[in-house]
Amino acid sequence: MYDITKRRSVRKYSNREVSDDQLRSLLQRAEQTQTMGNLQLYSVVINRSPEMKAKLAPAHFNQPMVEQAPVVLTFCADYNRCTKWCNERKATPGYDNFLSFLNAATDALLYCQTFCHLAEEEGLGLCFLGTTIYNAQQIVDNLQLPRLVMPVATITLGWPDEAPPVSDRLPLEAIIHEETYKAYTAESIDAFYSPKEELEENKQFVEINNKETLAQVFTDCRYRGEDCKVISSQLLEVLKKQGFLN
Amino acid sequence: MYDITKRRSVRKYSNREVSDDQLRSLLQRAEQTQTMGNLQLYSVVINRSPEMKAKLAPAHFNQPMVEQAPVVLTFCADYNRCTKWCNERKATPGYDNFLSFLNAATDALLYCQTFCHLAEEEGLGLCFLGTTIYNAQQIVDNLQLPRLVMPVATITLGWPDEAPPVSDRLPLEAIIHEETYKAYTAESIDAFYSPKEELEENKQFVEINNKETLAQVFTDCRYRGEDCKVISSQLLEVLKKQGFLN
Repeated sequence: MYDITKRRSVRKYSNREVSDDQLRSLLQRAEQTQTMGNLQLYSVVINRSPEMKAKLAPAHFNQPMVEQAPVVLTFCADYNRCTKWCNERKATPGYDNFLSFLNAATDALLYCQTFCHLAEEEGLGLCFLGTTIYNAQQIVDNLQLPRLVMPVATITLGWPDEAPPVSDRLPLEAIIHEETYKAYTAESIDAFYSPKEELEENKQFVEINNKETLAQVFTDCRYRGEDCKVISSQLLEVLKKQGFLN
Repeated sequence: MYDITKRRSVRKYSNREVSDDQLRSLLQRAEQTQTMGNLQLYSVVINRSPEMKAKLAPAHFNQPMVEQAPVVLTFCADYNRCTKWCNERKATPGYDNFLSFLNAATDALLYCQTFCHLAEEEGLGLCFLGTTIYNAQQIVDNLQLPRLVMPVATITLGWPDEAPPVSDRLPLEAIIHEETYKAYTAESIDAFYSPKEELEENKQFVEINNKETLAQVFTDCRYRGEDCKVISSQLLEVLKKQGFLN
Protein backbone atom coordinates (compact mmCIF):
# COMPACT_ATOMS: atom_id res chain seq x y z
CA MET A 1 0.00 0.00 0.00
CA TYR A 2 1.15 3.51 -0.82
CA ASP A 3 2.84 5.30 2.08
CA ILE A 4 3.11 9.06 1.69
CA THR A 5 5.88 9.27 4.29
CA LYS A 6 8.10 7.41 1.81
CA ARG A 7 7.37 9.69 -1.14
CA ARG A 8 10.16 11.39 -3.07
CA SER A 9 10.50 13.11 -6.39
CA VAL A 10 11.62 10.87 -9.24
CA ARG A 11 13.78 12.34 -12.01
CA LYS A 12 14.82 9.17 -13.90
CA TYR A 13 12.29 7.04 -15.72
CA SER A 14 12.42 3.56 -17.25
CA ASN A 15 11.52 2.79 -20.88
CA ARG A 16 8.12 1.48 -19.82
CA GLU A 17 5.34 3.51 -21.40
CA VAL A 18 2.66 5.34 -19.43
CA SER A 19 -0.44 4.12 -21.23
CA ASP A 20 -2.92 6.64 -22.47
CA ASP A 21 -5.71 4.78 -20.67
CA GLN A 22 -3.94 5.05 -17.34
CA LEU A 23 -3.05 8.71 -17.87
CA ARG A 24 -6.60 9.61 -18.80
CA SER A 25 -8.07 7.67 -15.93
CA LEU A 26 -5.81 9.55 -13.49
CA LEU A 27 -6.60 12.94 -15.05
CA GLN A 28 -10.30 12.17 -14.94
CA ARG A 29 -10.41 10.92 -11.36
CA ALA A 30 -8.45 13.99 -10.22
CA GLU A 31 -11.30 16.12 -11.57
CA GLN A 32 -13.23 15.32 -8.40
CA THR A 33 -10.95 17.77 -6.55
CA GLN A 34 -12.83 20.75 -5.12
CA THR A 35 -13.01 23.65 -7.56
CA MET A 36 -14.33 27.21 -7.27
CA GLY A 37 -18.07 27.26 -7.97
CA ASN A 38 -17.57 23.94 -9.79
CA LEU A 39 -16.12 25.97 -12.67
CA GLN A 40 -12.91 23.89 -13.07
CA LEU A 41 -10.73 26.85 -13.95
CA TYR A 42 -7.82 24.78 -15.29
CA SER A 43 -6.52 22.97 -18.32
CA VAL A 44 -3.72 20.45 -18.81
CA VAL A 45 -1.49 20.23 -21.84
CA ILE A 46 -0.14 16.71 -22.38
CA ASN A 47 3.23 16.44 -24.12
CA ARG A 48 4.56 13.13 -25.33
CA SER A 49 6.19 14.10 -28.63
CA PRO A 50 10.00 14.36 -28.52
CA GLU A 51 9.85 17.54 -30.62
CA MET A 52 7.56 19.30 -28.17
CA LYS A 53 9.51 18.12 -25.15
CA ALA A 54 12.70 19.44 -26.77
CA LYS A 55 10.99 22.78 -27.30
CA LEU A 56 9.85 22.93 -23.67
CA ALA A 57 13.19 21.90 -22.16
CA PRO A 58 14.90 25.33 -22.30
CA ALA A 59 12.00 26.90 -20.40
CA HIS A 60 12.85 24.43 -17.63
CA PHE A 61 16.56 25.30 -17.71
CA ASN A 62 17.20 22.09 -19.70
CA GLN A 63 16.66 19.85 -16.71
CA PRO A 64 17.16 16.41 -18.34
CA MET A 65 13.89 14.87 -17.12
CA VAL A 66 11.83 17.07 -19.45
CA GLU A 67 13.15 15.24 -22.50
CA GLN A 68 13.68 11.92 -20.75
CA ALA A 69 10.21 11.53 -19.23
CA PRO A 70 7.59 9.76 -21.36
CA VAL A 71 5.00 12.35 -20.34
CA VAL A 72 5.24 16.05 -19.52
CA LEU A 73 2.11 17.73 -18.16
CA THR A 74 1.66 21.50 -17.96
CA PHE A 75 -1.14 22.59 -15.62
CA CYS A 76 -2.65 25.95 -16.50
CA ALA A 77 -4.89 28.45 -14.76
CA ASP A 78 -7.64 28.74 -17.39
CA TYR A 79 -10.39 31.36 -17.51
CA ASN A 80 -10.47 31.20 -21.31
CA ARG A 81 -12.83 28.23 -21.50
CA CYS A 82 -15.21 29.64 -18.90
CA THR A 83 -15.18 33.04 -20.61
CA LYS A 84 -15.93 31.43 -23.96
CA TRP A 85 -18.81 29.53 -22.34
CA CYS A 86 -20.20 32.78 -20.90
CA ASN A 87 -19.92 34.52 -24.25
CA GLU A 88 -21.82 31.67 -25.91
CA ARG A 89 -24.58 31.96 -23.30
CA LYS A 90 -25.53 35.64 -23.35
CA ALA A 91 -23.51 36.25 -20.18
CA THR A 92 -20.93 39.01 -19.68
CA PRO A 93 -17.81 37.62 -17.99
CA GLY A 94 -15.37 39.87 -16.14
CA TYR A 95 -12.50 37.56 -15.25
CA ASP A 96 -9.55 39.42 -16.73
CA ASN A 97 -8.17 40.44 -13.35
CA PHE A 98 -5.74 39.37 -10.64
CA LEU A 99 -8.33 37.81 -8.32
CA SER A 100 -9.51 35.61 -11.16
CA PHE A 101 -5.94 34.57 -11.96
CA LEU A 102 -5.36 33.55 -8.36
CA ASN A 103 -8.66 31.67 -8.22
CA ALA A 104 -7.80 29.79 -11.41
CA ALA A 105 -4.21 29.15 -10.28
CA THR A 106 -5.59 27.72 -7.04
CA ASP A 107 -7.94 25.43 -8.95
CA ALA A 108 -5.09 24.29 -11.21
CA LEU A 109 -2.66 23.61 -8.35
CA LEU A 110 -5.17 21.67 -6.24
CA TYR A 111 -6.09 19.60 -9.28
CA CYS A 112 -2.40 19.04 -10.06
CA GLN A 113 -1.66 17.84 -6.56
CA THR A 114 -4.56 15.37 -6.52
CA PHE A 115 -3.25 14.06 -9.83
CA CYS A 116 0.25 13.68 -8.36
CA HIS A 117 -1.07 11.82 -5.34
CA LEU A 118 -3.17 9.41 -7.42
CA ALA A 119 -0.29 8.80 -9.86
CA GLU A 120 2.14 8.06 -7.04
CA GLU A 121 -0.39 5.71 -5.45
CA GLU A 122 -0.23 3.70 -8.68
CA GLY A 123 3.56 3.50 -8.51
CA LEU A 124 4.33 6.19 -11.07
CA GLY A 125 7.15 8.61 -10.32
CA LEU A 126 7.11 12.31 -10.96
CA CYS A 127 8.98 15.53 -10.51
CA PHE A 128 7.25 18.86 -10.01
CA LEU A 129 9.02 21.63 -11.93
CA GLY A 130 8.81 24.98 -10.20
CA THR A 131 10.49 26.49 -13.24
CA THR A 132 7.17 26.91 -15.05
CA ILE A 133 6.62 30.43 -13.73
CA TYR A 134 10.26 31.41 -14.29
CA ASN A 135 9.97 31.22 -18.05
CA ALA A 136 6.23 31.44 -18.48
CA GLN A 137 6.36 33.33 -21.79
CA GLN A 138 8.35 30.56 -23.49
CA ILE A 139 5.79 28.04 -22.32
CA VAL A 140 2.89 30.23 -23.42
CA ASP A 141 4.47 30.47 -26.87
CA ASN A 142 5.35 26.80 -27.26
CA LEU A 143 2.01 25.48 -26.02
CA GLN A 144 0.09 28.25 -27.83
CA LEU A 145 -1.76 29.30 -24.70
CA PRO A 146 -4.38 31.96 -25.47
CA ARG A 147 -5.48 34.96 -23.42
CA LEU A 148 -6.70 34.07 -19.90
CA VAL A 149 -4.58 30.93 -19.78
CA MET A 150 -1.41 30.93 -17.67
CA PRO A 151 0.89 27.96 -16.99
CA VAL A 152 1.42 27.44 -13.25
CA ALA A 153 2.96 23.98 -12.85
CA THR A 154 4.70 21.27 -14.83
CA ILE A 155 5.30 17.69 -13.91
CA THR A 156 7.42 15.07 -15.60
CA LEU A 157 5.90 11.61 -15.28
CA GLY A 158 6.99 8.03 -15.84
CA TRP A 159 7.83 4.71 -14.22
CA PRO A 160 10.67 5.17 -11.75
CA ASP A 161 14.16 4.11 -12.75
CA GLU A 162 15.73 5.32 -9.52
CA ALA A 163 14.96 5.10 -5.82
CA PRO A 164 16.34 8.28 -4.30
CA PRO A 165 16.30 8.69 -0.53
CA VAL A 166 13.35 10.40 1.10
CA SER A 167 14.10 14.10 1.77
CA ASP A 168 14.08 15.49 5.27
CA ARG A 169 11.36 17.89 6.36
CA LEU A 170 11.06 20.46 9.11
CA PRO A 171 9.52 19.24 12.37
CA LEU A 172 5.76 19.77 12.45
CA GLU A 173 6.12 22.42 15.17
CA ALA A 174 8.01 24.60 12.69
CA ILE A 175 5.05 24.97 10.36
CA ILE A 176 1.99 25.04 12.62
CA HIS A 177 0.59 27.89 14.69
CA GLU A 178 -2.15 27.52 17.31
CA GLU A 179 -4.93 30.11 17.06
CA THR A 180 -2.60 32.94 15.94
CA TYR A 181 0.78 33.17 14.22
CA LYS A 182 3.65 32.92 16.69
CA ALA A 183 6.78 34.88 15.91
CA TYR A 184 9.91 32.83 15.27
CA THR A 185 12.88 33.57 17.51
CA ALA A 186 16.60 32.94 17.11
CA GLU A 187 16.10 29.96 19.43
CA SER A 188 13.16 28.43 17.58
CA ILE A 189 14.92 28.89 14.23
CA ASP A 190 17.95 27.06 15.65
CA ALA A 191 15.78 24.24 16.94
CA PHE A 192 13.83 23.87 13.68
CA TYR A 193 16.67 24.19 11.17
CA SER A 194 19.70 22.66 12.93
CA PRO A 195 18.76 19.04 12.16
CA LYS A 196 18.60 19.95 8.45
CA GLU A 197 21.90 21.83 8.60
CA GLU A 198 23.59 18.91 10.29
CA LEU A 199 22.70 16.42 7.54
CA GLU A 200 25.82 15.16 5.77
CA GLU A 201 24.36 15.92 2.33
CA ASN A 202 23.67 19.51 3.31
CA LYS A 203 27.13 20.00 4.78
CA GLN A 204 28.55 18.81 1.46
CA PHE A 205 26.17 21.12 -0.37
CA VAL A 206 27.58 24.07 1.59
CA GLU A 207 31.16 22.97 0.90
CA ILE A 208 30.71 22.38 -2.85
CA ASN A 209 29.22 25.84 -3.17
CA ASN A 210 32.03 27.40 -1.16
CA LYS A 211 29.63 28.91 1.35
CA GLU A 212 29.62 29.30 5.08
CA THR A 213 25.99 28.34 5.79
CA LEU A 214 23.25 26.34 4.09
CA ALA A 215 21.05 29.44 3.96
CA GLN A 216 23.73 31.19 1.90
CA VAL A 217 23.53 28.44 -0.72
CA PHE A 218 19.91 29.45 -1.21
CA THR A 219 20.36 33.23 -1.11
CA ASP A 220 23.62 33.39 -3.10
CA CYS A 221 23.33 30.48 -5.54
CA ARG A 222 19.92 28.86 -5.94
CA TYR A 223 17.37 31.66 -5.45
CA ARG A 224 19.16 34.99 -5.60
CA GLY A 225 17.19 38.09 -4.67
CA GLU A 226 18.27 40.04 -7.75
CA ASP A 227 17.13 37.19 -10.02
CA CYS A 228 13.79 36.91 -8.19
CA LYS A 229 13.24 40.61 -8.74
CA VAL A 230 13.92 40.47 -12.49
CA ILE A 231 11.78 37.34 -12.91
CA SER A 232 8.96 38.93 -10.88
CA SER A 233 8.79 41.77 -13.39
CA GLN A 234 8.78 39.35 -16.32
CA LEU A 235 6.12 37.22 -14.66
CA LEU A 236 3.83 40.21 -14.09
CA GLU A 237 4.43 41.18 -17.73
CA VAL A 238 3.28 37.71 -18.89
CA LEU A 239 0.24 37.87 -16.59
CA LYS A 240 -0.62 41.20 -18.17
CA LYS A 241 -0.17 39.90 -21.70
CA GLN A 242 -2.35 36.91 -20.87
CA GLY A 243 -5.05 39.36 -19.83
CA PHE A 244 -5.07 38.83 -16.08
CA LEU A 245 -4.14 42.31 -14.83
CA ASN A 246 -7.04 44.50 -15.94
CA MET B 1 -11.29 1.87 0.68
CA TYR B 2 -11.40 5.56 -0.20
CA ASP B 3 -12.70 6.28 -3.70
CA ILE B 4 -11.91 9.74 -5.03
CA THR B 5 -14.66 9.57 -7.63
CA LYS B 6 -17.14 9.69 -4.74
CA ARG B 7 -15.60 12.71 -3.03
CA ARG B 8 -17.68 15.77 -2.22
CA SER B 9 -17.29 18.80 -0.01
CA VAL B 10 -18.81 18.45 3.45
CA ARG B 11 -20.29 21.50 5.16
CA LYS B 12 -22.04 19.91 8.15
CA TYR B 13 -20.09 18.20 10.90
CA SER B 14 -21.08 15.91 13.77
CA ASN B 15 -20.18 16.59 17.40
CA ARG B 16 -17.39 14.05 17.25
CA GLU B 17 -14.04 15.69 17.97
CA VAL B 18 -11.10 15.66 15.60
CA SER B 19 -8.35 14.54 17.95
CA ASP B 20 -5.19 16.54 18.12
CA ASP B 21 -3.14 13.40 17.50
CA GLN B 22 -4.99 12.66 14.29
CA LEU B 23 -4.79 16.27 13.10
CA ARG B 24 -1.07 16.46 13.78
CA SER B 25 -0.40 13.13 12.15
CA LEU B 26 -2.20 14.30 8.99
CA LEU B 27 -0.40 17.65 8.96
CA GLN B 28 2.92 15.92 9.43
CA ARG B 29 2.44 13.26 6.78
CA ALA B 30 1.35 15.92 4.29
CA GLU B 31 4.76 17.55 4.75
CA GLN B 32 6.17 14.94 2.38
CA THR B 33 4.55 16.86 -0.50
CA GLN B 34 7.11 18.26 -2.96
CA THR B 35 8.24 21.76 -2.04
CA MET B 36 10.48 24.30 -3.76
CA GLY B 37 14.11 23.62 -2.92
CA ASN B 38 12.84 21.72 0.14
CA LEU B 39 12.20 25.11 1.74
CA GLN B 40 8.59 24.41 2.81
CA LEU B 41 7.37 27.92 2.15
CA TYR B 42 4.12 27.56 4.07
CA SER B 43 2.54 27.69 7.51
CA VAL B 44 -0.80 26.53 8.85
CA VAL B 45 -2.80 28.30 11.53
CA ILE B 46 -5.04 25.89 13.45
CA ASN B 47 -8.22 27.37 14.92
CA ARG B 48 -10.35 25.44 17.38
CA SER B 49 -11.41 28.17 19.80
CA PRO B 50 -15.00 29.41 19.32
CA GLU B 51 -13.83 33.00 19.82
CA MET B 52 -11.31 32.81 17.01
CA LYS B 53 -13.71 31.01 14.68
CA ALA B 54 -16.29 33.72 15.35
CA LYS B 55 -13.69 36.34 14.47
CA LEU B 56 -12.80 34.58 11.24
CA ALA B 57 -16.38 33.96 10.12
CA PRO B 58 -17.06 37.43 8.62
CA ALA B 59 -13.96 37.13 6.41
CA HIS B 60 -15.65 34.04 4.96
CA PHE B 61 -18.96 35.85 4.40
CA ASN B 62 -20.34 34.17 7.53
CA GLN B 63 -20.65 30.79 5.90
CA PRO B 64 -21.97 28.70 8.82
CA MET B 65 -19.36 25.94 8.62
CA VAL B 66 -16.61 28.26 9.87
CA GLU B 67 -18.19 28.40 13.32
CA GLN B 68 -19.73 24.94 13.19
CA ALA B 69 -16.61 22.97 12.22
CA PRO B 70 -14.46 21.67 15.06
CA VAL B 71 -11.32 22.72 13.19
CA VAL B 72 -10.56 25.59 10.83
CA LEU B 73 -7.19 25.56 9.07
CA THR B 74 -5.71 28.56 7.28
CA PHE B 75 -2.88 27.69 4.90
CA CYS B 76 -0.44 30.53 4.30
CA ALA B 77 2.27 31.27 1.79
CA ASP B 78 5.16 31.91 4.19
CA TYR B 79 8.54 33.44 3.35
CA ASN B 80 8.83 34.94 6.81
CA ARG B 81 10.26 31.82 8.44
CA CYS B 82 12.77 31.23 5.64
CA THR B 83 13.80 34.90 5.69
CA LYS B 84 14.29 34.76 9.45
CA TRP B 85 16.42 31.63 9.01
CA CYS B 86 18.56 33.39 6.39
CA ASN B 87 18.99 36.43 8.61
CA GLU B 88 20.12 34.19 11.48
CA ARG B 89 22.68 32.52 9.19
CA LYS B 90 24.62 35.44 7.68
CA ALA B 91 22.65 35.12 4.44
CA THR B 92 20.93 37.97 2.61
CA PRO B 93 17.43 36.93 1.53
CA GLY B 94 15.59 38.73 -1.29
CA TYR B 95 12.15 37.17 -1.27
CA ASP B 96 9.93 40.22 -0.95
CA ASN B 97 8.67 40.00 -4.52
CA PHE B 98 5.86 38.57 -6.63
CA LEU B 99 7.76 35.51 -7.85
CA SER B 100 8.46 34.54 -4.26
CA PHE B 101 4.81 34.99 -3.33
CA LEU B 102 3.72 32.71 -6.15
CA ASN B 103 6.35 30.12 -5.23
CA ALA B 104 5.21 30.14 -1.61
CA ALA B 105 1.52 30.10 -2.57
CA THR B 106 2.22 27.08 -4.76
CA ASP B 107 3.97 25.31 -1.89
CA ALA B 108 1.06 26.11 0.44
CA LEU B 109 -1.64 24.95 -1.98
CA LEU B 110 0.09 21.68 -2.86
CA TYR B 111 0.59 20.98 0.83
CA CYS B 112 -3.04 21.87 1.53
CA GLN B 113 -4.31 19.52 -1.13
CA THR B 114 -2.25 16.59 0.11
CA PHE B 115 -3.63 17.27 3.56
CA CYS B 116 -7.20 17.28 2.18
CA HIS B 117 -6.65 14.01 0.37
CA LEU B 118 -5.18 12.28 3.43
CA ALA B 119 -7.94 13.62 5.69
CA GLU B 120 -10.67 12.43 3.32
CA GLU B 121 -9.01 9.02 3.09
CA GLU B 122 -9.50 8.76 6.85
CA GLY B 123 -13.19 9.57 6.55
CA LEU B 124 -13.01 13.21 7.61
CA GLY B 125 -15.09 15.74 5.71
CA LEU B 126 -13.97 19.17 4.65
CA CYS B 127 -14.89 22.24 2.74
CA PHE B 128 -12.34 24.38 0.93
CA LEU B 129 -13.13 28.09 1.32
CA GLY B 130 -12.12 30.13 -1.69
CA THR B 131 -13.11 33.22 0.28
CA THR B 132 -9.69 33.43 1.93
CA ILE B 133 -8.26 35.73 -0.74
CA TYR B 134 -11.45 37.82 -0.93
CA ASN B 135 -10.97 39.23 2.56
CA ALA B 136 -7.30 38.57 3.09
CA GLN B 137 -6.68 41.66 5.22
CA GLN B 138 -9.23 40.58 7.84
CA ILE B 139 -7.56 37.20 8.06
CA VAL B 140 -4.10 38.76 8.28
CA ASP B 141 -5.33 40.91 11.16
CA ASN B 142 -7.16 38.19 13.05
CA LEU B 143 -4.42 35.59 12.75
CA GLN B 144 -1.69 38.22 13.27
CA LEU B 145 0.18 37.23 10.13
CA PRO B 146 3.47 39.12 9.83
CA ARG B 147 5.23 40.47 6.75
CA LEU B 148 5.92 37.84 4.06
CA VAL B 149 3.00 35.69 5.19
CA MET B 150 -0.16 35.64 3.10
CA PRO B 151 -3.26 33.45 3.64
CA VAL B 152 -4.14 31.52 0.47
CA ALA B 153 -6.60 28.81 1.51
CA THR B 154 -8.90 27.87 4.38
CA ILE B 155 -10.54 24.54 5.07
CA THR B 156 -13.18 23.64 7.59
CA LEU B 157 -12.72 20.12 8.92
CA GLY B 158 -14.73 17.61 10.92
CA TRP B 159 -16.56 14.30 10.87
CA PRO B 160 -19.33 14.41 8.25
CA ASP B 161 -22.91 14.92 9.37
CA GLU B 162 -24.29 14.97 5.85
CA ALA B 163 -23.84 12.93 2.68
CA PRO B 164 -24.38 15.38 -0.16
CA PRO B 165 -24.49 14.07 -3.73
CA VAL B 166 -21.28 14.00 -5.75
CA SER B 167 -21.02 17.07 -8.02
CA ASP B 168 -20.84 16.72 -11.75
CA ARG B 169 -17.63 17.54 -13.61
CA LEU B 170 -16.81 18.46 -17.18
CA PRO B 171 -15.88 15.56 -19.46
CA LEU B 172 -12.14 14.93 -19.53
CA GLU B 173 -11.92 16.09 -23.14
CA ALA B 174 -12.95 19.56 -22.00
CA ILE B 175 -9.87 20.09 -19.88
CA ILE B 176 -7.05 18.29 -21.72
CA HIS B 177 -5.05 19.43 -24.72
CA GLU B 178 -2.71 17.20 -26.74
CA GLU B 179 0.71 18.77 -27.45
CA THR B 180 -0.67 22.31 -27.85
CA TYR B 181 -3.75 24.20 -26.63
CA LYS B 182 -6.71 23.70 -28.95
CA ALA B 183 -9.12 26.60 -29.31
CA TYR B 184 -12.66 26.00 -28.04
CA THR B 185 -15.44 26.48 -30.59
CA ALA B 186 -19.15 27.14 -30.19
CA GLU B 187 -19.67 23.45 -30.92
CA SER B 188 -17.16 22.14 -28.40
CA ILE B 189 -18.50 24.49 -25.72
CA ASP B 190 -22.00 23.14 -26.39
CA ALA B 191 -20.79 19.57 -26.18
CA PHE B 192 -18.82 20.13 -22.96
CA TYR B 193 -21.30 22.30 -21.05
CA SER B 194 -24.73 21.06 -22.14
CA PRO B 195 -24.78 18.04 -19.80
CA LYS B 196 -24.12 20.40 -16.87
CA GLU B 197 -26.76 22.86 -18.04
CA GLU B 198 -29.31 20.08 -18.38
CA LEU B 199 -28.99 18.92 -14.77
CA GLU B 200 -32.22 19.48 -12.85
CA GLU B 201 -30.38 21.24 -9.99
CA ASN B 202 -28.77 23.68 -12.40
CA LYS B 203 -32.07 24.42 -14.16
CA GLN B 204 -33.54 25.26 -10.76
CA PHE B 205 -30.50 27.38 -9.97
CA VAL B 206 -31.14 29.43 -13.11
CA GLU B 207 -34.84 29.79 -12.25
CA ILE B 208 -34.32 30.79 -8.61
CA ASN B 209 -31.91 33.48 -9.73
CA ASN B 210 -34.30 34.72 -12.42
CA LYS B 211 -31.73 34.25 -15.16
CA GLU B 212 -31.87 32.93 -18.66
CA THR B 213 -28.70 30.81 -18.63
CA LEU B 214 -26.51 29.08 -16.06
CA ALA B 215 -23.52 31.16 -17.15
CA GLN B 216 -25.48 34.30 -16.24
CA VAL B 217 -25.88 33.04 -12.67
CA PHE B 218 -22.10 33.12 -12.44
CA THR B 219 -21.48 36.42 -14.23
CA ASP B 220 -24.44 38.34 -12.72
CA CYS B 221 -24.80 36.83 -9.23
CA ARG B 222 -21.97 34.67 -7.95
CA TYR B 223 -18.78 36.14 -9.44
CA ARG B 224 -19.54 39.55 -10.88
CA GLY B 225 -16.87 41.26 -12.94
CA GLU B 226 -17.14 44.56 -11.08
CA ASP B 227 -16.69 42.80 -7.74
CA CYS B 228 -13.70 40.84 -9.04
CA LYS B 229 -12.10 44.08 -10.13
CA VAL B 230 -12.54 45.78 -6.75
CA ILE B 231 -11.33 42.70 -4.86
CA SER B 232 -8.33 42.40 -7.19
CA SER B 233 -7.19 45.88 -6.16
CA GLN B 234 -7.68 45.08 -2.48
CA LEU B 235 -5.82 41.79 -2.85
CA LEU B 236 -2.85 43.47 -4.53
CA GLU B 237 -2.91 46.04 -1.72
CA VAL B 238 -2.69 43.27 0.91
CA LEU B 239 0.11 41.56 -1.03
CA LYS B 240 1.97 44.85 -1.03
CA LYS B 241 1.41 45.41 2.70
CA GLN B 242 2.62 41.89 3.41
CA GLY B 243 5.80 42.79 1.57
CA PHE B 244 5.43 40.68 -1.57
CA LEU B 245 5.42 43.36 -4.27
CA ASN B 246 8.89 44.93 -4.06
